[in-house]
Amino acid sequence: MTEATATQQTTGALMAAETAEQPAIWRNLVANAKADDSDVAAAAQRIVDLDPRMVLFVARGTSDHAALYGKYLAEINHGLPCGLVSPSTMTTYGARPDLEGVLMIGVSQSGGSPDLVRSLEVGRESGALTIAITNKADSPLAQAAEAHVDVQAGPELAVAATKSYTAQLLALHLLLARVRGQDVSAVEAVADAGEAVLAQDAAIAEIAQRYRFASRLVTTGRGYSYPTASEAALKLMETCYLSAQAFSGADLLHGPLAMIDSNVPVLAVAAEGKGGAAMESVYERLHGRGADIFTVGSASAVANSTNGLVLPQGVSEELSPLLEILPFQQLALHLALARGVNPDVPRGLLKVTETL
Amino acid sequence: MTEATATQQTTGALMAAETAEQPAIWRNLVANAKADDSDVAAAAQRIVDLDPRMVLFVARGTSDHAALYGKYLAEINHGLPCGLVSPSTMTTYGARPDLEGVLMIGVSQSGGSPDLVRSLEVGRESGALTIAITNKADSPLAQAAEAHVDVQAGPELAVAATKSYTAQLLALHLLLARVRGQDVSAVEAVADAGEAVLAQDAAIAEIAQRYRFASRLVTTGRGYSYPTASEAALKLMETCYLSAQAFSGADLLHGPLAMIDSNVPVLAVAAEGKGGAAMESVYERLHGRGADIFTVGSASAVANSTNGLVLPQGVSEELSPLLEILPFQQLALHLALARGVNPDVPRGLLKVTETL
Repeated sequence: MTEATATQQTTGALMAAETAEQPAIWRNLVANAKADDSDVAAAAQRIVDLDPRMVLFVARGTSDHAALYGKYLAEINHGLPCGLVSPSTMTTYGARPDLEGVLMIGVSQSGGSPDLVRSLEVGRESGALTIAITNKADSPLAQAAEAHVDVQAGPELAVAATKSYTAQLLALHLLLARVRGQDVSAVEAVADAGEAVLAQDAAIAEIAQRYRFASRLVTTGRGYSYPTASEAALKLMETCYLSAQAFSGADLLHGPLAMIDSNVPVLAVAAEGKGGAAMESVYERLHGRGADIFTVGSASAVANSTNGLVLPQGVSEELSPLLEILPFQQLALHLALARGVNPDVPRGLLKVTETL
Repeated sequence: MTEATATQQTTGALMAAETAEQPAIWRNLVANAKADDSDVAAAAQRIVDLDPRMVLFVARGTSDHAALYGKYLAEINHGLPCGLVSPSTMTTYGARPDLEGVLMIGVSQSGGSPDLVRSLEVGRESGALTIAITNKADSPLAQAAEAHVDVQAGPELAVAATKSYTAQLLALHLLLARVRGQDVSAVEAVADAGEAVLAQDAAIAEIAQRYRFASRLVTTGRGYSYPTASEAALKLMETCYLSAQAFSGADLLHGPLAMIDSNVPVLAVAAEGKGGAAMESVYERLHGRGADIFTVGSASAVANSTNGLVLPQGVSEELSPLLEILPFQQLALHLALARGVNPDVPRGLLKVTETL
């Protein structure tokens, strides 16, 4: 964090520095996860020993999008039914479900949100194996859980989370890969690809000018890219104060499509792979509505759009979300600056949200 | 449907007629569910026999909000862990989870969406007990499931779903009440309350003028009222083409709060009960951002807002969502008309959405 703190007088400097740190954080996290005495290895062993019948995720905000990514991983690679917990059922309404044989994963940057801590406590009391994935080893959430994975992203000072998000994605990926006994060395290449994406910052700064006066837009993606669309929308809401709504490509066609016209920009995520391929019919319907589309993803999807940014090849669909979000983090930063807003300190927000 | 078809030349006549039909549909549905030879009773018996270890819901669009309501019911009243299925994991990615002992409920007005049908088929092949809740007894979804509950709302001709939504809520409520062996007669009173709410149509028409020129707004609620906030947003997007974003009260504070100012109207749902009480801190933060708030709910929540509509007393928090959505359906209609749009036939939408 020395780079960031040294320059924090400059508007957006924290967010810019934290965004740039990501590939290095990923390298570090992979190196750690490879060690058999790592926290990732220990948590994975607990999961193997349990052989869970289902997985429940508990998270809010940006971390909720990381949890959604984890849900896709566990459903697709492990054939496990998954759910995202509505914390209020356990906190506000006092539900006490039978969670014997259930794996409960709490995801939180700060590990400090009281309703998440309480949900994990209730989960543990109710028989679940509880694992916390946080960026703070001594946080209440880490302490409430039976096992903890530290995403080791370093202190995150900008209110808008960037590096902790991709570190959470990667930690979930590494954790579940270890549960399957998979060699995680192949993951190292994603850091190089991440640097290549971040190097296109100037192109994104130019794109930001295009949306300078937009007050609302829509983001969309399918499968593994849907969490990216959700996180991209949140980042734009937080830092640029515009209405950004995320829809899975399929859900978009069930109603919200009506509000799309040539004046509501669509930011799409369509990487190489099955999720991206499933977006083809969505693009068709969007073209039918005269939509202006910016795509982050495959060359063919970008070619099918108004403009876009092609991601490097050779990264699996499953790992693409680490790359996909980077241009949107940069876009949120540049667009905020273009609109005269300091993205490091959004109005009305606190870094740790104390919902009960 | 005779009222609706007779007047369908008039703009919005279908949606108005279908909205007005709801209390009668609820009375009919309760009367049917009381009978021991009803489809509700038969489906409930299947659930009792299974004694499920968890519940998975499969739905999209408006029906997804009914499913979310079902998730709260099953988590709170039955202590069952629940999940909302991401259909793409089973269709696009070919996941084949072990669903032995799992209850899988598919919710769909038309019962015709191919990805939902396929998800239920995979669920059934994978060992789940599958139940379909639709408005069409001979639909593919009804046929794919082992048991079917017909919500009996009659043909829904307006593209924006209204009566099928509350019928789905009520069918889910009745189904789970019967699983618990609860007498469902008490539910009958909600129909009278529904009529009292619908009678305030003129007040809602006036409120609509206030939002005549809004291009974006936010809806919010917690617990049982969160599905209402989600459905209200979808209705406004579909019929008025404005950006309407729903957030649980807690999630709103994790980022999106930054985009709220006095020019982004907030439509809140805060009925009597625990969910409404949990909104108090959210109102506080919204006031801090100078928000303009319209509330549907308790007298105290309305008193804490810029304006609002108080719901009749004496309806349980659990059943309040049936009432809460009615003013928003009316608002969507009146606002669409004020903006010169025919809410019966939104641009770009089809009644049955054929996502794969």
